[in-house]
Amino acid sequence: MRADVGFTGAVLDRADRERNNPEALTAALGDWRARLLRLDGLEPEIDGEGQLVWTSLADLPEGSEPLFLGYIGGKPHFAPLAMGERHGVTRSPALFQMLGLMPADQAGLYACVRSLVDWHQRNGFCPACGTATELFRAGWARRCPSCAAEHFPRTDPVVIMLAEYEGRALLGRQAAWPAGRYSALAGFVEVGESIEEAVARETLEEAGVAVRNVRYVASQPWPFPSSLMIACIAEAEGDSLTLDTHELEDAIWVTREEARAALGGAADARFGAPPHYAIAHSLLRAWVGD
Amino acid sequence: MRADVGFTGAVLDRADRERNNPEALTAALGDWRARLLRLDGLEPEIDGEGQLVWTSLADLPEGSEPLFLGYIGGKPHFAPLAMGERHGVTRSPALFQMLGLMPADQAGLYACVRSLVDWHQRNGFCPACGTATELFRAGWARRCPSCAAEHFPRTDPVVIMLAEYEGRALLGRQAAWPAGRYSALAGFVEVGESIEEAVARETLEEAGVAVRNVRYVASQPWPFPSSLMIACIAEAEGDSLTLDTHELEDAIWVTREEARAALGGAADARFGAPPHYAIAHSLLRAWVGD
Repeated sequence: MRADVGFTGAVLDRADRERNNPEALTAALGDWRARLLRLDGLEPEIDGEGQLVWTSLADLPEGSEPLFLGYIGGKPHFAPLAMGERHGVTRSPALFQMLGLMPADQAGLYACVRSLVDWHQRNGFCPACGTATELFRAGWARRCPSCAAEHFPRTDPVVIMLAEYEGRALLGRQAAWPAGRYSALAGFVEVGESIEEAVARETLEEAGVAVRNVRYVASQPWPFPSSLMIACIAEAEGDSLTLDTHELEDAIWVTREEARAALGGAADARFGAPPHYAIAHSLLRAWVGD
Repeated sequence: MRADVGFTGAVLDRADRERNNPEALTAALGDWRARLLRLDGLEPEIDGEGQLVWTSLADLPEGSEPLFLGYIGGKPHFAPLAMGERHGVTRSPALFQMLGLMPADQAGLYACVRSLVDWHQRNGFCPACGTATELFRAGWARRCPSCAAEHFPRTDPVVIMLAEYEGRALLGRQAAWPAGRYSALAGFVEVGESIEEAVARETLEEAGVAVRNVRYVASQPWPFPSSLMIACIAEAEGDSLTLDTHELEDAIWVTREEARAALGGAADARFGAPPHYAIAHSLLRAWVGD
């Protein structure tokens, strides 16, 4: 089972080898072809084709530092970091409209920038000793000048899964979602557990459904703020539900036909499908066999 | 392809629902059957069967706080947290001997405790503002009394993979490893990339080998300090190697026969296999088809 997923396919060469190489970084900063991403807070600008808009390093705002993303087509690419600003988990309606228009590779590049900038802005101090930290590794880490601890951007693995029982799949909805929207259950992988164990624990906690035989389907980055979404399908041992109402407002078992209607946007679909750039959409598509 | 993996199968009910419930926590702390893990720094004690040794809450060291792990067999289980102590990434030879003796479920429980305690000890200050933080959610988070930011234990996804070319698999070795040991290549998943993209990037960065068709095999927690290991197999586009000598001292292509000899501990094996509790071992076993 394979799935096309959003936020993937960015053509960025991350050039990990150069992050610790001051000469390479200086050369990249001095390269007249260097590009700087246009950001408005944490949000991107896109053109009519859904492509990210870039400018030159000369436009780096005063007080901002350039984060070295890597190379695209041989040209160094940077993102601006303004440490003073804090945007929290702002996700404007305009942003989700933009994501709907962006090809997966552009969304993937944006995901990288957004998670990186957001992480810096929320991690200006050393969690080990409380001292203000400094940027290093060309923007891919922070270092404490007092205790010398090094800190790296955080990527949180999240399982997102369909429990399957007699040809139907389990979907849930949270109260804050658009009316009618249902999606796959999901939750953070905790320390000391495997992907398979996290799938079983979360499905049991949220819906009271025990599962086995967890199968991996696909993965995607999700930059709100920096998750790695890991999509799976598992066999449920029964279909009776006991909801954790702190997590889910409702949960339903849907047939492949109902899921197909929802994915196709049918007016009389039983539920509203998650947007195409979310891996829950790809997971449902993989499950119905399209 | 399925694989038995180390550090999995712990029978802990994490009781997520009770972490925010002060009454439930008070009841658990007052339960005379409550168990407290014996820890020496970050290292466990085990009995003759490789089982973790527990004691009662009365043995909680002065100045330590109890972390609520959850329930085993209906009994509340705790681990002691001493915030003053710092053990860094200490991994004694004795610890690895113990891991060799512990059943996977015991190692999985220990992985949870080790990663959690270590995270608290290295995260006593708010990374957003530098203020000393306080334990909350029964030991599963820290909160800043100044800016109210909440911080959760970190789980870092790591890809670990075999590139396959004409019936042979790519293994590498780091200079610090025991003589003769070879294992699967591995690296952290970065922000803005999928598991599949991380596998391709790391294999190219470390060995100069381009891969495609990444297949997921299995996952395990690895508590040094808190990784989620994600094991995959991918098709290599060729077998010529360009090593990143900062990462790898050597890399070799091995046949299934050579891998089988190494996994069986044969004296004349071409290389030494990773230990049975490491997912690289399970991955090799899955690849050779055992």
